[in-house]
Amino acid sequence: MHVMVTGAAGMIGRKLAERLGQEGALAGAAITVLTLSDIVAPPVPAGFAGAVSRVTADLAAAGVAERLISARPEVVFHGAGVVSAEAEMDLEKGYHANLDGTRMLLEAVREVGGGYRPKVVFTSSCAVFGAPFPDVIPDDFHLTPLTSYGTQKAMCELMLADYSRRGFLDGVGLRLPAVCVRPGPPNKAASGFFSAIIREPLAGRDTVLPVSEDVLHTHASPRATVGFLIHAAGLSRDVLGPRINITMPGVCCTVGEQIEALRRVAGDAAVARIRRAPDPLVERIVAGWPHRFDAARARALGFVAESSFDEIVRIHVEDDLGGRLPA
Amino acid sequence: MHVMVTGAAGMIGRKLAERLGQEGALAGAAITVLTLSDIVAPPVPAGFAGAVSRVTADLAAAGVAERLISARPEVVFHGAGVVSAEAEMDLEKGYHANLDGTRMLLEAVREVGGGYRPKVVFTSSCAVFGAPFPDVIPDDFHLTPLTSYGTQKAMCELMLADYSRRGFLDGVGLRLPAVCVRPGPPNKAASGFFSAIIREPLAGRDTVLPVSEDVLHTHASPRATVGFLIHAAGLSRDVLGPRINITMPGVCCTVGEQIEALRRVAGDAAVARIRRAPDPLVERIVAGWPHRFDAARARALGFVAESSFDEIVRIHVEDDLGGRLPA
Repeated sequence: MHVMVTGAAGMIGRKLAERLGQEGALAGAAITVLTLSDIVAPPVPAGFAGAVSRVTADLAAAGVAERLISARPEVVFHGAGVVSAEAEMDLEKGYHANLDGTRMLLEAVREVGGGYRPKVVFTSSCAVFGAPFPDVIPDDFHLTPLTSYGTQKAMCELMLADYSRRGFLDGVGLRLPAVCVRPGPPNKAASGFFSAIIREPLAGRDTVLPVSEDVLHTHASPRATVGFLIHAAGLSRDVLGPRINITMPGVCCTVGEQIEALRRVAGDAAVARIRRAPDPLVERIVAGWPHRFDAARARALGFVAESSFDEIVRIHVEDDLGGRLPA
Repeated sequence: MHVMVTGAAGMIGRKLAERLGQEGALAGAAITVLTLSDIVAPPVPAGFAGAVSRVTADLAAAGVAERLISARPEVVFHGAGVVSAEAEMDLEKGYHANLDGTRMLLEAVREVGGGYRPKVVFTSSCAVFGAPFPDVIPDDFHLTPLTSYGTQKAMCELMLADYSRRGFLDGVGLRLPAVCVRPGPPNKAASGFFSAIIREPLAGRDTVLPVSEDVLHTHASPRATVGFLIHAAGLSRDVLGPRINITMPGVCCTVGEQIEALRRVAGDAAVARIRRAPDPLVERIVAGWPHRFDAARARALGFVAESSFDEIVRIHVEDDLGGRLPA
């Protein structure tokens, strides 16, 4: 089986490629070729026995998607695109990378024709939703995104469903919750603190909490997120039905509950590294985000998130810190 | 005030241009220039005192939207596009006309900049919804279109909302119910019978009913539809808020109730011209369409539909038959 990953240099793309490489199989079939594509060179996953093809190119540039798809991958994990803040700062870049890139990919698949009908697993986001929200967002809640990023993801979801309905491909779009704990250096994203308040203390560094402890949010670990993508690749068209874009489950908890989970895993000293410094701008942005999802359909389809935030903290320690807690 | 209408040669576009020409004003301001654009030459509305500019061109072709927008119309009624059946038969044409055409228009507005921020009234459709449905579709129900046409309209709604949020324009999208009674010759659309069972008997011609009389559907007359568009042009950004795409109200009734309305307006002889000829294909297509909308938000915003199907029949007689009933 030939499996392709777009956005393979991103955090989730890298972890997905590593896991595919380690498992060597997907949906019951051995992976013989792994094509990894991104605008910067993606790393080669360790320990994969099959062939790895790396393509460093802009998916939205003319001819790139055609070239990638001409090798007829059976499964395409499509995660390429620019992130929320970038799409908001640079409108043209966001529509180019996120909308045109996806459209180029879907068009390239359609143009192959001749019975070629790959599984396309699309990385969408809970940013497709926009406030005001009910307490729990049901699976049939409308999409009124409040960012250009969310708009582009929602537009791609629609096109993916249409191309699936018309039989050009078997698409499935996953609306991911906040991915936490995000490894790597702190970033400027308004959501950065959700990960930083866990990651930085666990790395022995101080960090700042800009919002109140009663802020509620839904999280899934990078490991669970990669699990969602892999599970989606194994879902048949019959099981999915026509509503192929699905809100993923996660652990819904307050910032205060996140901090108590950190305390249980790493002790008071870790928690003492969190300094309260309320930031009205961040508080205002976060207030516009969805808190809690029903995700009944995803759970019924077998998507599994963590069952507690403690588990999310422990997964970060295992997967990103080699199992080591701070001294 | 300079008002532009795209799709001005279509049935609704023509009626809208006629009404704008007759009223000579929109949202309290006198109309000095009326630009009418379509891919075929739009008719000149009778009795308009201002200047009429007609542009026969494909809005989605390079440079056309820029040329139209360079004259800086204060209000743009954007109805250009291909209809449902055509978008389904020709995928490329549908995405070109319906998605790219709208994107070209929005981009042309954005590129003018310098404080230019027109009102853009977009003609969307209840085809953005897809079965299965609750008995009454609430205003916050998700969009899962089952046609490429509905997909393209939903994608345009999202982009219109994003461009409005970013301050490039003041958009409002109207999800129109079935427009009934549609004048002109019978067409091949699966929905054609909803109008034909009224229009043909009133014109002294026989017609065929392909579905059961208990089929439920929501209708608005062409006059009410034009009224929705004109009312939308007068709604301020503050009143609309960020959720600018709105499901319009209509008269929800069964086919049997339509026929009884025809009987009350035109007598038994008219009803006798309807022959039952069940068509399983049409029955199946119609079963996938939404029946009834809450449209609470539209009603609260002052959009007014007819209050009975009798009124819809009488409006057809007045507006399209010169007030004459069959002998």
